[in-house]
Amino acid sequence: MKVEKWGVFEIALQGKSEGNPFVDYDIRGTFRSEEEMVTADGFYDGGGTYRVRFMPSFEGEYTYVISGSFSDEETRGHFTAVAPTGNNRGPVRVANKYHLAYEDGTPHYSFGTTCYTFDLIHPAIVEQTFEELKKGYFIKIRFCIMPKHYDFCLKDPVAFPYDGTPMDASVLTRDNFSQYSGAAEGNDWDFTRFNPEFFRIHDRTVQRLMDMGIEADMIVFHAYDRRGFSQMSMEDNLRYVRYVAARYSAYRNVWWALANEYELLGHLKESDWERLAEELTSHDPYHHLISIHNCEAFYDYTKPWITHCSCQRCDHYRTTEYTDDMRRQYGKPVVWDEFGYEGDFPHCWGNFTPEEIVRRSWEAILRGGYAGHGETFQSEDDIIWWCHGGRLKGESARRFRFMWEFLEDVPGCGLKFAHLRDDVHFQWDDKVAVPEDPAYEGDYYFFYFSIWRPPFRQIWIDDETEFDVEIIDTYDMTVTPAGRFKGRFDVPLPGKQYIGVRLKRI
Amino acid sequence: MKVEKWGVFEIALQGKSEGNPFVDYDIRGTFRSEEEMVTADGFYDGGGTYRVRFMPSFEGEYTYVISGSFSDEETRGHFTAVAPTGNNRGPVRVANKYHLAYEDGTPHYSFGTTCYTFDLIHPAIVEQTFEELKKGYFIKIRFCIMPKHYDFCLKDPVAFPYDGTPMDASVLTRDNFSQYSGAAEGNDWDFTRFNPEFFRIHDRTVQRLMDMGIEADMIVFHAYDRRGFSQMSMEDNLRYVRYVAARYSAYRNVWWALANEYELLGHLKESDWERLAEELTSHDPYHHLISIHNCEAFYDYTKPWITHCSCQRCDHYRTTEYTDDMRRQYGKPVVWDEFGYEGDFPHCWGNFTPEEIVRRSWEAILRGGYAGHGETFQSEDDIIWWCHGGRLKGESARRFRFMWEFLEDVPGCGLKFAHLRDDVHFQWDDKVAVPEDPAYEGDYYFFYFSIWRPPFRQIWIDDETEFDVEIIDTYDMTVTPAGRFKGRFDVPLPGKQYIGVRLKRI
Repeated sequence: MKVEKWGVFEIALQGKSEGNPFVDYDIRGTFRSEEEMVTADGFYDGGGTYRVRFMPSFEGEYTYVISGSFSDEETRGHFTAVAPTGNNRGPVRVANKYHLAYEDGTPHYSFGTTCYTFDLIHPAIVEQTFEELKKGYFIKIRFCIMPKHYDFCLKDPVAFPYDGTPMDASVLTRDNFSQYSGAAEGNDWDFTRFNPEFFRIHDRTVQRLMDMGIEADMIVFHAYDRRGFSQMSMEDNLRYVRYVAARYSAYRNVWWALANEYELLGHLKESDWERLAEELTSHDPYHHLISIHNCEAFYDYTKPWITHCSCQRCDHYRTTEYTDDMRRQYGKPVVWDEFGYEGDFPHCWGNFTPEEIVRRSWEAILRGGYAGHGETFQSEDDIIWWCHGGRLKGESARRFRFMWEFLEDVPGCGLKFAHLRDDVHFQWDDKVAVPEDPAYEGDYYFFYFSIWRPPFRQIWIDDETEFDVEIIDTYDMTVTPAGRFKGRFDVPLPGKQYIGVRLKRI
Repeated sequence: MKVEKWGVFEIALQGKSEGNPFVDYDIRGTFRSEEEMVTADGFYDGGGTYRVRFMPSFEGEYTYVISGSFSDEETRGHFTAVAPTGNNRGPVRVANKYHLAYEDGTPHYSFGTTCYTFDLIHPAIVEQTFEELKKGYFIKIRFCIMPKHYDFCLKDPVAFPYDGTPMDASVLTRDNFSQYSGAAEGNDWDFTRFNPEFFRIHDRTVQRLMDMGIEADMIVFHAYDRRGFSQMSMEDNLRYVRYVAARYSAYRNVWWALANEYELLGHLKESDWERLAEELTSHDPYHHLISIHNCEAFYDYTKPWITHCSCQRCDHYRTTEYTDDMRRQYGKPVVWDEFGYEGDFPHCWGNFTPEEIVRRSWEAILRGGYAGHGETFQSEDDIIWWCHGGRLKGESARRFRFMWEFLEDVPGCGLKFAHLRDDVHFQWDDKVAVPEDPAYEGDYYFFYFSIWRPPFRQIWIDDETEFDVEIIDTYDMTVTPAGRFKGRFDVPLPGKQYIGVRLKRI
């Protein structure tokens, strides 16, 4: 049998089904090649079937042993991990300290979108969402494992994660939905019995995204809930985390968002989050990217298990402009997964203009960070991208593709904010990015003018270097050559907002 | 003789003219009524003439004695201070801790503009400027006493403040002007001999503004200079300060801006500024408003001589949104005299959209502060409002009048930012202002949505109070009644930026 390096090798075995197989028995696989030995937990998938999934990180021959109390016998076998093909570049890792790259070294520029519960609502909407994703605006999608209950997001999912029955939803209205948050009465679940059908939905989603080369940023915990899933005991939480880790870790495109707006799960203390993080990371043999997303105050991103800062804006006005400060404070990649959504929601986080969404994203890029998209347009069918996926309606989405292509043109992997230096004649108010990689120092400069509208800009790097100069309209997505310049020169500009100037050394 | 309370009583006397009358002789007046006794310095006005100016703060009979080494005789006299007429409401004072009011108690809502050197360039431009001021957009104008030299601002003034000759200006270009900053060679001044003709220009300006009811925010020191006036010795600085105080203090509409961008006068230490402030305040018998304006770092506004914070934005992105923090930190009125100018300058401070200028101003108002206008549109005749006055070209100016009228409608004197409170059902992201004066608590609320575009907003103050609700388009300057509401209600909104909602208790 053959599987690609960084592909999913899966073995399914029949085992004991007496009692409660989700908790009464265990299963694990140990996988060996010349290069690595990995032990991975398996999971019970219902109907007497147990599965173990494994992602080989090397090419070559692998042997494995599957063991555990699920069966009285060990199962042994072997397979060959062959070279990756197509868009298979491995899992995304931290690269260049503040940036990201696939394991094969290809830079990953994180432009994601958020569709919290897009794969749980209706198969037709899932198809619509994938059609939109095919447009190539985004390289990552952030979504919840658990169902969601929130304003504009009250639909029942096609399945639930546990055996049992949910509360009666017919009492819900827009005005009273918040009364049914958390552990509302009327839910009846057995948190020791997962519903495999529910988790299979995410199997298919993650696989399909992987095939498209799109990262799956899986939100493990969140508070937008009326069904009690956000109010489980720590014992239940830990069991859930282990199940999720066993089920999804072998997909190379998985990122872990331990929580969305962790503070809203008010009953969980920092020590609880640390314990959950430990459980998740110790059951993920592949060390996927992991972070924890905030509501109003950042988590302490210096914690060693956190690979990158997954941020929501803490200030309504100044947001991604803090990227450089965040980098310095935390020493990790900064990904603004939520700084506002384009749309027409009544909530302040959901009615931004596309111009402001795009500007905030460029402010992040300029400072060596990344920014994520979201869309909250009300619609007659109540299908809203941010929650359900479906159809994109806004103007900002396709502009993320332009940012992505812009970054792909940067030498090395990623940008950093250029602080005023003596050897470069920056002006006091220049906002300039340069390549992160010192090998390209002096080769590339990007000046960004944001909300300002200079009719021209004097640029003066040094007296000798000749540059190809281009004017970039970051909103209208145009790149206009301005000519070759040397020394101190004026670049004529269109006198509108959202303009940048790119210099490339000849 | 009769003079209005808060008017200027002036007496001119001939005196000694041998030697250098500016420094060799002194003159002062002591003015007595039943209510007050004031000693005011006089000044030498050239041609053997000495003047003493006095502003009576009370109605009634005044006697005076003019004395000093300028003459071997004392001069005595009397006059009657009569009731103020027209727009004479007295000097502006701090009121309600964070706000301003004329001495007669009428609130003063500080909406100023900046025309740094508008009265020194050409009489025809002065007339144009006054024509624009007549439109009533502004209640204050900020301008320099000394001539200005800066980018786009290189014209010679019609007179200089001292006897002597300036450097040859024919060498100046846009690219080299900064080489001639400060104490450039070629200037030859006698800093002990003021040029009365120069200072008379400002006499006329201040008087004319006073007649129009417009405050004169006079900038005493600034660094934009090629003629050496910014580089005088402390002895010269102190003499200049005394001359300015003696000359202009009696005009009720004077405010002192001890410096513009004080840090740019790098040779002056904090102790120097404190000394200059002491000299100015101790020679101003009327205790005019006084502040000191920053470039990149605020001066310590807690200093007791500072009556209000005159601020330039320290952050390019978040600016007037800091107003509430500034109020809490300094306990004084916050006036953003410079947070960016509407225009098409290459400099980041001078090419804002009118929308952003207006938005930043409303953010200040919302938080119980004030904001000032500026305009930097390039023009063929090089007459630029921010420096020379002339003609207004932008869209923001008339919108300051709308803000002013909006504030005049607030009960009491001024607004304050309403922090979330238990007894009012504000939403977590509401940005609301209420009257500063506790006597009007519960009578008035102003919700501002800034860059956000809610299609409606749920408002819920309490369950009993009935409100007249109006939708205010702060950019388009419209006030649209939305009806009477009580309890929890949705206000339908136009779904565009820069909208506010005003609630008035019935």
